[in-house]
Amino acid sequence: TLIFGVFLSQMGWGDLGAFGEPSKETPNLDQMAAEGMLFLDFYTANPLCSPSRAALLTGRLPVRNGFYTTNGHARNAYTPQDIVGGIPDSELLLPELLKKAGYTNKIIGKWHLGHRPQFHPLRHGFDEWFGSPNCHFGPYNNRERPNIPIYRDWEMVGRYYEDFKIDLKTGESNLTQLYLQEALDFISKQQASQQPFFLYWAIDATHAPVYASKQFLGTSQRGLYGDAVREIDDSVGKILKHLQQLGISENTFVFFTSDNGAALISAPRQGGSNGPFLCGKQTTFEGGMREPAIAWWPGHIPAGGVSHQLGSVMDLFSTSLSLAGLQPPSDRQIDGIDLLPVILQGKLIDRPIFYYRGNELMAVRAGLYKAHYWTWSNSWEEHGKGIDFCPGQSVAGVTTHTQEEHTYLPLLFHLGRDPGEKYPL
Amino acid sequence: TLIFGVFLSQMGWGDLGAFGEPSKETPNLDQMAAEGMLFLDFYTANPLCSPSRAALLTGRLPVRNGFYTTNGHARNAYTPQDIVGGIPDSELLLPELLKKAGYTNKIIGKWHLGHRPQFHPLRHGFDEWFGSPNCHFGPYNNRERPNIPIYRDWEMVGRYYEDFKIDLKTGESNLTQLYLQEALDFISKQQASQQPFFLYWAIDATHAPVYASKQFLGTSQRGLYGDAVREIDDSVGKILKHLQQLGISENTFVFFTSDNGAALISAPRQGGSNGPFLCGKQTTFEGGMREPAIAWWPGHIPAGGVSHQLGSVMDLFSTSLSLAGLQPPSDRQIDGIDLLPVILQGKLIDRPIFYYRGNELMAVRAGLYKAHYWTWSNSWEEHGKGIDFCPGQSVAGVTTHTQEEHTYLPLLFHLGRDPGEKYPL
Repeated sequence: TLIFGVFLSQMGWGDLGAFGEPSKETPNLDQMAAEGMLFLDFYTANPLCSPSRAALLTGRLPVRNGFYTTNGHARNAYTPQDIVGGIPDSELLLPELLKKAGYTNKIIGKWHLGHRPQFHPLRHGFDEWFGSPNCHFGPYNNRERPNIPIYRDWEMVGRYYEDFKIDLKTGESNLTQLYLQEALDFISKQQASQQPFFLYWAIDATHAPVYASKQFLGTSQRGLYGDAVREIDDSVGKILKHLQQLGISENTFVFFTSDNGAALISAPRQGGSNGPFLCGKQTTFEGGMREPAIAWWPGHIPAGGVSHQLGSVMDLFSTSLSLAGLQPPSDRQIDGIDLLPVILQGKLIDRPIFYYRGNELMAVRAGLYKAHYWTWSNSWEEHGKGIDFCPGQSVAGVTTHTQEEHTYLPLLFHLGRDPGEKYPL
Repeated sequence: TLIFGVFLSQMGWGDLGAFGEPSKETPNLDQMAAEGMLFLDFYTANPLCSPSRAALLTGRLPVRNGFYTTNGHARNAYTPQDIVGGIPDSELLLPELLKKAGYTNKIIGKWHLGHRPQFHPLRHGFDEWFGSPNCHFGPYNNRERPNIPIYRDWEMVGRYYEDFKIDLKTGESNLTQLYLQEALDFISKQQASQQPFFLYWAIDATHAPVYASKQFLGTSQRGLYGDAVREIDDSVGKILKHLQQLGISENTFVFFTSDNGAALISAPRQGGSNGPFLCGKQTTFEGGMREPAIAWWPGHIPAGGVSHQLGSVMDLFSTSLSLAGLQPPSDRQIDGIDLLPVILQGKLIDRPIFYYRGNELMAVRAGLYKAHYWTWSNSWEEHGKGIDFCPGQSVAGVTTHTQEEHTYLPLLFHLGRDPGEKYPL
């Protein structure tokens, strides 16, 4: 059994046609959902990129794997190039474990778990890497703060904007095509050598600044952001087709999801949509943490399946180990669960979802109920500067601009009747 | 060619699984969409029940067919039992015209175009009726304001709550089952006699007060409203299956849509969801007028089709006439267009969408652009009483509580990039 992950950068629930995006421009992802299983209650472990990715690869909450801050209440932690931290050596990453079962592991795209040499993905279980340690922010073009580098394995092969062009004016960049080709080549090589593999396809589109290849520019009703979504959709379709053409689709478990909700501060030009959900990235409302999620495994997962299992990106850690016939490490707490009984036998496993922001447990979901112990969108100070995590949305006492504690009387929502968290019980 | 309409009471865009409702509890409607054509840019002619239904049956805007008010600026008009007005005799209704082509016409459910004898549906082209002149508001149970009657053809056969039970405590009522059986029986009868028919299935679920039959109570994650949606979904599935079993599905054009957006003032217990759109019923924002819409006609409409044609409920008038080989009346302005070239040949017809509220043209959509000439949600006075047409939503200068004129500088939105009308250009 082979494993293969698709992990997108802040694509929102409402960005897929299958989830009600009104332009309906994702035929390949919709097809993937129709052939596989849709998870309707699937969550990230943190509404920000670095901790979410750390949680996926360790199967552990950010408060356990180190991706949290204590220096600012409810502040999320991430690792831009001016932060010296990264994934601790003491953490066991999924690729490190998969190696024991003979897997070749490749990361394509954004690592985000530290850019210093000791945090290099090839030191943490990956055999190959094509991509960047951080987001393609920039351009900086100066000595103190250079543009983000791109690596091929150990070697830096260039920098965004300089050697890997992104035209901020037109939005043109062929990066997604490079990452697609890299994926297709890796899959071909592994298939030829009959080696099991783990591909972590963590491309950095649709993160702002948004880009798309020339052939996708102007093709979406949604503007440049939609062009980027279309290109990703097309790429996923090509990868799935490639697996089918190589005859290994029935041996390949593919999971599609995103690292956090759409970044509404960048919407609509540079950010996506969380559909009916409240707020977006950075928040512990549904819009920040509920993710589109699709499992695809022809011949194993019944087509058109739908699951209401409360799932988490951390489950991909445990599920992948299970697929590889491995046990999760027993010397530490693992927060992910094995979803195979859910996916293959339609079971529902009782488990809560924890919504963290930094080191603060903001909310918990159990069944259809969600209790907020703290509410906060963003500060009045930021809000005054035009930064809004919940543009166009305002629920009195819920989308607060001060950090409000509800520990003694949690703010309760029924997510079945009220998925948009508009009517506290 | 036979015709058959499904017209629901204030079901919202966001209430269908295919449109991203997070509980995904509408497998039959989703299947109907997968087998037919989804209209993603389909509108009602007014965000209120009576004028919307008048527009559907006349192919004309409410300002032409009389369903508007002049006594209150931007106030919608509808016909509860204490209003003496109704559809003028001078209007030509779809069933009146279809008669000329030998159609038998039946209305099942809510008429809403006047309850006085001169407005009776059998005086306006329908041959059969089982249903009520108005919504099942109530119970009133008094002489001055009795409960709403139910008619079989000319005869009143009972009243809601009295003879047709709705248990407001448990939410139980078998009305949708009665209306379903009535539809199945009518279809069987017409098939047996080889007569073409027009069935206008205008059941009054999911209008508040919401109800569902016993076997559907408690089956939805969404509570009673969701139970009602599930029952409708199940009913539509049974009707389509019945057409298939009788071997007439390839001769029957079925269209599913709703009369206005979800009534957010009743949400979440008694009202639905407009997904990513702004506000709801009574407003001229997308949430008030953009409707889920599905055309189904096996063997004619290619499965899985998606259309971005700007469509309107008034088009069902013109399209139905076209299907019946009839010409629309030439002595009056018809606002609907024939959608057959869109449905059968994938064409896109250039036409605007007008958003009226009462007799005021509030907004116009052309292509992906929408211009608001007036903005208004509801008054401060109502708002102070807890009535909110846009709960949890607030866009500065857009969801205004006073009537704001923008005639000289319309408020412009790009509905492709910003379907939620959150970012004025």
